[in-house]
Amino acid sequence: MSLRCDVLAVGTELLLGQIIDSNSAWIGGELAAHGVDSLVQVKVGDNVGRIAAQLQRLLTDADAVIVTGGLGPTHDDLTREAIAEVMGAELVEDPAIVEVISAMFAERNRAMPDNNRRQALVPVGAAVISQTRGTAPGLICPVLIDGTEKVVYAVPGVPHEMRDMIARAIIPDLRRRSGSDAVIVSRVLRTWGASESGLNERLDHVITELDGPGTPTLAFLASGWNGLKVRLTAKAATSDDCCAQLDHWEARVRAEIDDIVFGTDDETMESIVLDMCRARGLSLAVAESVTGGLVGARLTDIPGSSAVFRGSIVSYATDVKQDLLGVSAGPVVGESAAREMAHGVRERLGADVGLSLTGVAGPDEQDGQPAGTLYVGVVGPGFDVVHHARLPGHREQMRQFSVITALGFVRRALLAG
Amino acid sequence: MSLRCDVLAVGTELLLGQIIDSNSAWIGGELAAHGVDSLVQVKVGDNVGRIAAQLQRLLTDADAVIVTGGLGPTHDDLTREAIAEVMGAELVEDPAIVEVISAMFAERNRAMPDNNRRQALVPVGAAVISQTRGTAPGLICPVLIDGTEKVVYAVPGVPHEMRDMIARAIIPDLRRRSGSDAVIVSRVLRTWGASESGLNERLDHVITELDGPGTPTLAFLASGWNGLKVRLTAKAATSDDCCAQLDHWEARVRAEIDDIVFGTDDETMESIVLDMCRARGLSLAVAESVTGGLVGARLTDIPGSSAVFRGSIVSYATDVKQDLLGVSAGPVVGESAAREMAHGVRERLGADVGLSLTGVAGPDEQDGQPAGTLYVGVVGPGFDVVHHARLPGHREQMRQFSVITALGFVRRALLAG
Repeated sequence: MSLRCDVLAVGTELLLGQIIDSNSAWIGGELAAHGVDSLVQVKVGDNVGRIAAQLQRLLTDADAVIVTGGLGPTHDDLTREAIAEVMGAELVEDPAIVEVISAMFAERNRAMPDNNRRQALVPVGAAVISQTRGTAPGLICPVLIDGTEKVVYAVPGVPHEMRDMIARAIIPDLRRRSGSDAVIVSRVLRTWGASESGLNERLDHVITELDGPGTPTLAFLASGWNGLKVRLTAKAATSDDCCAQLDHWEARVRAEIDDIVFGTDDETMESIVLDMCRARGLSLAVAESVTGGLVGARLTDIPGSSAVFRGSIVSYATDVKQDLLGVSAGPVVGESAAREMAHGVRERLGADVGLSLTGVAGPDEQDGQPAGTLYVGVVGPGFDVVHHARLPGHREQMRQFSVITALGFVRRALLAG
Repeated sequence: MSLRCDVLAVGTELLLGQIIDSNSAWIGGELAAHGVDSLVQVKVGDNVGRIAAQLQRLLTDADAVIVTGGLGPTHDDLTREAIAEVMGAELVEDPAIVEVISAMFAERNRAMPDNNRRQALVPVGAAVISQTRGTAPGLICPVLIDGTEKVVYAVPGVPHEMRDMIARAIIPDLRRRSGSDAVIVSRVLRTWGASESGLNERLDHVITELDGPGTPTLAFLASGWNGLKVRLTAKAATSDDCCAQLDHWEARVRAEIDDIVFGTDDETMESIVLDMCRARGLSLAVAESVTGGLVGARLTDIPGSSAVFRGSIVSYATDVKQDLLGVSAGPVVGESAAREMAHGVRERLGADVGLSLTGVAGPDEQDGQPAGTLYVGVVGPGFDVVHHARLPGHREQMRQFSVITALGFVRRALLAG
């Protein structure tokens, strides 16, 4: 039998529409991927009585509830109090947590404000999920409802803290409680170059074959500049059985769309490009215009990127393109400008591979080119090419798509070169 | 007395995280702007029993419920059935609606599929909100709960259809029922430089004063590299009264924390810096190391930034710092390196203002400096300073905080210079 875990998102700003609750959607996806049902998800404001009332209601139907938000240090962070009320337990300060939090402040040469002590309050009987990033720890709180033990999990509303605790502590705890020894394993194929509906068409008959028992489920997850993900999820007695299923069906899927699969699971286009360069002993430099620095920012988000990435020149002003990158007079959004930028930055920064991006993010057109226009230059040992692309979306989206599109061209050049 | 209208978003895909429910957030904002409280917002899947159960629950506390989604023509669009169940009314086909829908198809030279007849089903006693765009009409359904008349509004999940019906039919109906003309207006002060708990302490007695009637509510919204927001929300008879309240209390709040308030409402640190430079006729160039291009990316995310931002040099490799920016040999994370980078990029790119960032994003230390170390150089007409900061967080967060921190130092330099 599979567990039911509903979700309660806490925060008045969520009800007022000042922030859109994306946490519960992410949690719902994670739970589904691990065979846990989530049938009701609720948003409630910063009010002890209402938070407690919603917890009570959800716990009558669900085996578990994940509460996100309301664990901050301020007067309107009330999730701890509400859970204690539902448990009928006292809140007691945990000195170990106080120590951890004060150490975090000490590291920044600051004293811990008194308010943060509130984050060390733990309902008697609850277990603590240690914090790795923020100051708020998570909580695992057993609750007795009509003689049945149920559980409330509390995690911060800050997405990266929430995600870390769900993966590290809550999913394993739920799996243990479910008692089901069925194993669920997912594998993600990351693609770039086809729309969701296009992908759907190309995989049409594979999807039909997947409709039987003992076969994985397949889902598309549009993930912006992380590509369009194809997720296969297998459920079986052992992880070996799951992997056997996944290997078979990954091969079937790849047979249809291998040309646009660039990575699996946690690989990103930037990690792929950095790994390929590292393996070939090649350094990389980037000349950016339309993206304003986004490509370098994305590459350097990965620890160890300094082994490959030498740097970039963001030539936003036209004369900077000419003075610093040696771009000749004329339109700066076009094939020759892109090629000159790639060569220029490669020489300037003494790199093996030069990548350039020039285009129009919009809203207005430029050099008679419409918003969405992108030229990408890639020059290195054995290759010297310029690609032209037309990207959809408003300014921010177009710039993000430009990053994965450009790095995708570097990947192709390295594969071919 | 102000009405309470809760929200129910219907769709299994919302629970699975395949689509993020942004409808209820938008509805919550609209309701608040018209003085209607929305205290609980729920997501539920495509299941008649569960939709009906959630409606029952919400109607026990709320005067009204807006249901969005589940009005499509397919077998898993079940909102109509669930509402009829809660009303204890029959569903009857409305020939007028059938005509409208078939006319819509006729316009596209197509016959109406039989499925669409389902969209003409109306619970006996309900009023219809005519459709202007999609094929699904909305519904206004009176429900008697313990002798009190309450109301369920049904609108499609398609955002533009939903928004049209809310504005055209539902808000006016709610205002009529409430008999109140209370208006709600919010104002956000954006701060950078204090932790949420630190801010809470500095505003402690203002918060106490705000506890009375006829005063705005105050909330903190931690928004990462968009700063820490202080939101004042006033409720009064007219928007003028609201603004008077907000003016008074904004002054009170500023009296305590004006040193760290950098903007209001939609202003960001980058828009502020760009505006200040533009107003002073100053151009800006950036030398980035630890942020890898993030500062330039952030600045150029704003249309029109090219009037101020000339570009940046991302000197990730040490020898690039030396060759391109003229940084002398020695540690590259430190005060003199930061100063040389700022001067170097200012000259190289011929800008009025030079900004530099060098630091350690982690996970490992560098030049004997721990992760979180940041040095910022700001040089321009009348100023030439280097700031040192210790930032919290893991790699990504530290880099994001570096951006707003560095731009904050530019703002201060321009204010002083």
